[in-house]
Amino acid sequence: MTTHKFEHPLNEKTRIYLRVEALLSQMEQASQFGDDIQHQLFFRSLFDLLEIFEQIQLKSELAKDVEKQRQVYRNWLNVEGVDQEMLQSLLSEVDHAHRSLMGAERFGQSLKEDRFLSAIRQRFNLPGGSCCFDLPALHYWLHLPLEQKIQDARQWIKPLQPLADALKLWLKLTRETGSFRNREAKAGFYQSDAEEANILRLSIPLEYGVYPMISGHKNRFAIKFIEFSSGQASTQNIEFDLAVCS
Amino acid sequence: MTTHKFEHPLNEKTRIYLRVEALLSQMEQASQFGDDIQHQLFFRSLFDLLEIFEQIQLKSELAKDVEKQRQVYRNWLNVEGVDQEMLQSLLSEVDHAHRSLMGAERFGQSLKEDRFLSAIRQRFNLPGGSCCFDLPALHYWLHLPLEQKIQDARQWIKPLQPLADALKLWLKLTRETGSFRNREAKAGFYQSDAEEANILRLSIPLEYGVYPMISGHKNRFAIKFIEFSSGQASTQNIEFDLAVCS
Repeated sequence: MTTHKFEHPLNEKTRIYLRVEALLSQMEQASQFGDDIQHQLFFRSLFDLLEIFEQIQLKSELAKDVEKQRQVYRNWLNVEGVDQEMLQSLLSEVDHAHRSLMGAERFGQSLKEDRFLSAIRQRFNLPGGSCCFDLPALHYWLHLPLEQKIQDARQWIKPLQPLADALKLWLKLTRETGSFRNREAKAGFYQSDAEEANILRLSIPLEYGVYPMISGHKNRFAIKFIEFSSGQASTQNIEFDLAVCS
Repeated sequence: MTTHKFEHPLNEKTRIYLRVEALLSQMEQASQFGDDIQHQLFFRSLFDLLEIFEQIQLKSELAKDVEKQRQVYRNWLNVEGVDQEMLQSLLSEVDHAHRSLMGAERFGQSLKEDRFLSAIRQRFNLPGGSCCFDLPALHYWLHLPLEQKIQDARQWIKPLQPLADALKLWLKLTRETGSFRNREAKAGFYQSDAEEANILRLSIPLEYGVYPMISGHKNRFAIKFIEFSSGQASTQNIEFDLAVCS
């Protein structure tokens, strides 16, 4: 059965982590410059990331969260029945991510100082602002050989690698804390406790023709299913899979 | 010799025309949804267009300009030496574009009233705001079969067809008024008269490693060439081709 995967962050910090994950992945994908419009997405993702870095102290937040995970996994050291080899390997991965993170520059610092990027960033958000006359330097850059452009992109992405690695690990370990269970939303509505969870993951059969609207706090969340065709609340009983990840 | 093509509008109205042309072309190209990130560009272009339509009365401006071109070409009727058959065919093309334009809705009207588009437009400009939790309806839509998505895109593009046709014609006829002539910028600088021109078109050999910064008013313009590598004004003598289009 084809399903519709959906993730919902239960706090502001995780919301930003998921946005950053999406932007990094989009930037990575667009950095192949596979057609003559992909560069737009590449720069847009990059500038969106810089905007997020300016708004929050992402590095210290993430370092704290990785440290918390490390503590949790350390508690399993020497506990009987726990695969110690696997645990050691995981802990060294976490250590490595934490160290790289602490050693990294303030996220986006070198990108903000890049002359070319700064010049194009100012006008990139104008509606239709990526025309050659708005951004002549970008227009010149677009004429460079593909390999040169891909290499430039790699250079710009590189300082974000410690962020990408640590975030990927934190999200992976967080997602693994939850396991999918079958649930039923009666008349399109479901609510439950979250116990300080970070992410809800849903898998919804497409045949219902619905998408979820989720409201949640630390400890409690509610899912209202909306009919895509009408935009109205669904009154169907909907079976879906749910994982609560903390 | 590989060159770098460049266009510069000499007034605000033409600046908007060129932006709209770029956005329409980008939207068209992205409407194939060839990879899983192209939809971002599609919607971004669409919403940028809506923003421009809200800022200026594009329809009446463009109708006036198409009408002006019609008058110019009418003056050639029954003039000896002018290919009358070709002229008639051009005039009927202009008539048709003008009529479609006058008969069209206010640009973007039906798109602004579209429930789905309005819902996603609000959050689309958040940095990283196209995650599933920000835009659950969009996320559902992305799971629809490709043919359905392409068909939806066609429906959204359709009401903009009279704009696209008239703009394409106006820009084509405008560009045809100028012909490329070889020019030299001494020590990286060139200036000349523009005589109420609308667009400057430049073709610059890539080997100079420069891009143009152009300042222009109705009647006069100046081109300063900038070295891409240093960001500084070039002091080279630069041969390039220039067409002044009115």
